[in-house]
Amino acid sequence: MILVNFKTYAQATGKNAVKLAKIAHDVSLKTDVCVAVAPQFVDINRIANEVDIPVFAQHVDPINYGSHTGHILPQAIKEAGAIGTIINHSERRLKLTDINTAIRMASEAGLTSIACADTAEVSAAVAALNPDMIAVEPPELIGTGIPVSRAKPEVVTNSIKLIRKVNPTVIILCGAGITKGADVKAALKLGTEGILIASGVVKAKDQYTALLDLAEAMMKA
Amino acid sequence: MILVNFKTYAQATGKNAVKLAKIAHDVSLKTDVCVAVAPQFVDINRIANEVDIPVFAQHVDPINYGSHTGHILPQAIKEAGAIGTIINHSERRLKLTDINTAIRMASEAGLTSIACADTAEVSAAVAALNPDMIAVEPPELIGTGIPVSRAKPEVVTNSIKLIRKVNPTVIILCGAGITKGADVKAALKLGTEGILIASGVVKAKDQYTALLDLAEAMMKA
Amino acid sequence: MILVNFKTYAQATGKNAVKLAKIAHDVSLKTDVCVAVAPQFVDINRIANEVDIPVFAQHVDPINYGSHTGHILPQAIKEAGAIGTIINHSERRLKLTDINTAIRMASEAGLTSIACADTAEVSAAVAALNPDMIAVEPPELIGTGIPVSRAKPEVVTNSIKLIRKVNPTVIILCGAGITKGADVKAALKLGTEGILIASGVVKAKDQYTALLDLAEAMMKA
Amino acid sequence: MILVNFKTYAQATGKNAVKLAKIAHDVSLKTDVCVAVAPQFVDINRIANEVDIPVFAQHVDPINYGSHTGHILPQAIKEAGAIGTIINHSERRLKLTDINTAIRMASEAGLTSIACADTAEVSAAVAALNPDMIAVEPPELIGTGIPVSRAKPEVVTNSIKLIRKVNPTVIILCGAGITKGADVKAALKLGTEGILIASGVVKAKDQYTALLDLAEAMMKA
Repeated sequence: MILVNFKTYAQATGKNAVKLAKIAHDVSLKTDVCVAVAPQFVDINRIANEVDIPVFAQHVDPINYGSHTGHILPQAIKEAGAIGTIINHSERRLKLTDINTAIRMASEAGLTSIACADTAEVSAAVAALNPDMIAVEPPELIGTGIPVSRAKPEVVTNSIKLIRKVNPTVIILCGAGITKGADVKAALKLGTEGILIASGVVKAKDQYTALLDLAEAMMKA
Repeated sequence: MILVNFKTYAQATGKNAVKLAKIAHDVSLKTDVCVAVAPQFVDINRIANEVDIPVFAQHVDPINYGSHTGHILPQAIKEAGAIGTIINHSERRLKLTDINTAIRMASEAGLTSIACADTAEVSAAVAALNPDMIAVEPPELIGTGIPVSRAKPEVVTNSIKLIRKVNPTVIILCGAGITKGADVKAALKLGTEGILIASGVVKAKDQYTALLDLAEAMMKA
Repeated sequence: MILVNFKTYAQATGKNAVKLAKIAHDVSLKTDVCVAVAPQFVDINRIANEVDIPVFAQHVDPINYGSHTGHILPQAIKEAGAIGTIINHSERRLKLTDINTAIRMASEAGLTSIACADTAEVSAAVAALNPDMIAVEPPELIGTGIPVSRAKPEVVTNSIKLIRKVNPTVIILCGAGITKGADVKAALKLGTEGILIASGVVKAKDQYTALLDLAEAMMKA
Repeated sequence: MILVNFKTYAQATGKNAVKLAKIAHDVSLKTDVCVAVAPQFVDINRIANEVDIPVFAQHVDPINYGSHTGHILPQAIKEAGAIGTIINHSERRLKLTDINTAIRMASEAGLTSIACADTAEVSAAVAALNPDMIAVEPPELIGTGIPVSRAKPEVVTNSIKLIRKVNPTVIILCGAGITKGADVKAALKLGTEGILIASGVVKAKDQYTALLDLAEAMMKA
């Protein structure tokens, strides 16, 4: 799986978000690789209606229905058309106990959870909370174009080793700094099963070509 | 103005949010009172498309376009169809400097800002930041059915007094515990120009009748 | 070990903190049980100087020397005379990645770390971060006088089971709701090796007798 | 007044904190300028006991006695020997409503409050909460050695103008980037009544000479 995180980039907000989701759909059809998108909350419904592609939220709060003005309710995310959510992204870190509750709440709402972690130890900690997937992302590499699979391969391999001791089945994604097909291959060779990417696609001059390069690398792997 | 805050109530999420927005529209047409709604982020676009009513966000983050996974971008809120946003609701309190930035960012994105305050002193502080509107809401009365205009009228009158020393033009709304037309009249008599309401309408057995009662009281005032 | 958390109780602030630390020392001498105290930051130095007892901080921030106004520096805690610190208490929850960093920073400063957890899953997550000790404390029981060892023994036994899969050596303490010697015995019988207590001692009419009861129960166990 | 913020610098922790407090005392005696210090919480008691100088905390939490593990209780700060506290420093920003409560709690505990603000609008907002003093500090200049009084004099003059509309009596301090006597003179000329300084003194090769330079500039002003 390739998950494209739209963050709050201008190139992936509103109309641009729908356009990029369609590109992701095209690449997915062409390569048969599962390409999912994580747009901003306000764009989830529109993309889920207009594009036939798995949609994730970028965050959910550890809450149920009730008096929570300004918070992200897992059930509302689900009803808007998302199938899953990122939790604890390095730009939206949560308290440990809230990660635990958010994973459970997401699961009860029928959402697939992808919990992010920045180090091998934190990856193992997150694994103990039983999310559906874990994305290993050293934050110092995010947006740099320097892929973790090359700059810090030991973070990925140590993470996998520690995660597997705690949780033998969770799906492991690799993030941070990925921009090219070669980075994808390196990530998969280290033992991860998919990638989380943002600026490498969203801010590319040609979003289609950039994403196609990644998907083809995954297809061949 | 009457602003109905949908919070994350089940009765105002997804399809129910659209239904309640339509009720608000009906009441608005019948009474000629401006009734606005503040749904969850994911429901903004759908309501803005399907219902001809002013839509507010419940919160925005003090950010611009960029790497802000899981955050609320004012421009995205605007593009989704909202005309304004609540800031610093008692269930989503912000740091002082972030309130200042969020008000400015909302304004740059073309959003009307409604900043919330819990005491007279905090109301004056918020007034110094020049939002378009201030909502005075003692949090201990929120959801109680005991209107601030009756339980703590001095909070409202002191707030107005202190706000006016700092800011002679900002529009002042009254919130917390309002459920009936009589509460609206009391609030307006104290000198406020509109109300912020949530459970009194959202959780009412008959949302239409509850909201009509409030709007008629405002019309006659 | 018995660790008495002074929180910010009036009965354990300033002079009262020193007095209670002396009581803890007396009980320790009389029973030969290790009784440690966790006073407020400002009282650490005075207690460490005047009373020969292990002193813990109630919290440390995940920081090193530098520009961190108003934060708690592990090295400063150490130099003031503490030998360890609580991390992630339910009244001072941290982000997951900050717990990881705080544990490492505490260790580098020569402080013993006690990380708190509220559920079995969170206990396992914390165990993956390798603190020196883990305190299992369901927050809904804190201050109630209803000991976790009786109300929710399965939280303790499940925690121990999940912790041991991740970390075979970490010392496990039991907290929340403990007030009597019988509660201590129950906690030890479940497999924990010490207790974390606050109001049960601090707010007792006779602090000495209350603490002695706990220590004698531990001695006999 | 000159207030030296020790932050968590190695040069102002533990023994070094006491040493720097003594230097501040010497400079104060020599120049007859009021020099106060804001050490870390753990060092307050020792400095208050050993050095005859006004001591401030770097932060207090908006709490009273009770169950607040790991928090900073105003009364405990007072009993440890401090006479006041900084609130809302740019490195320890608070929610607006918590600044309001913290100022009131500090006042009830007998502590002088110095609330920090980063812009003219925020300065006015803080003034509405009636602290004893306001420190105007654009955070982007902190630690740069570029004094706000030179780089952004309009922030200071605008702040004073907006503050005085709201609050005619509060004492106004100037912070951020001050290192030399000339900076002090410039700050006072703009209309402030004292300065807040950290790295300019703490990290100076010769702390005594650096502080003396500032105090003499203030004396002559």
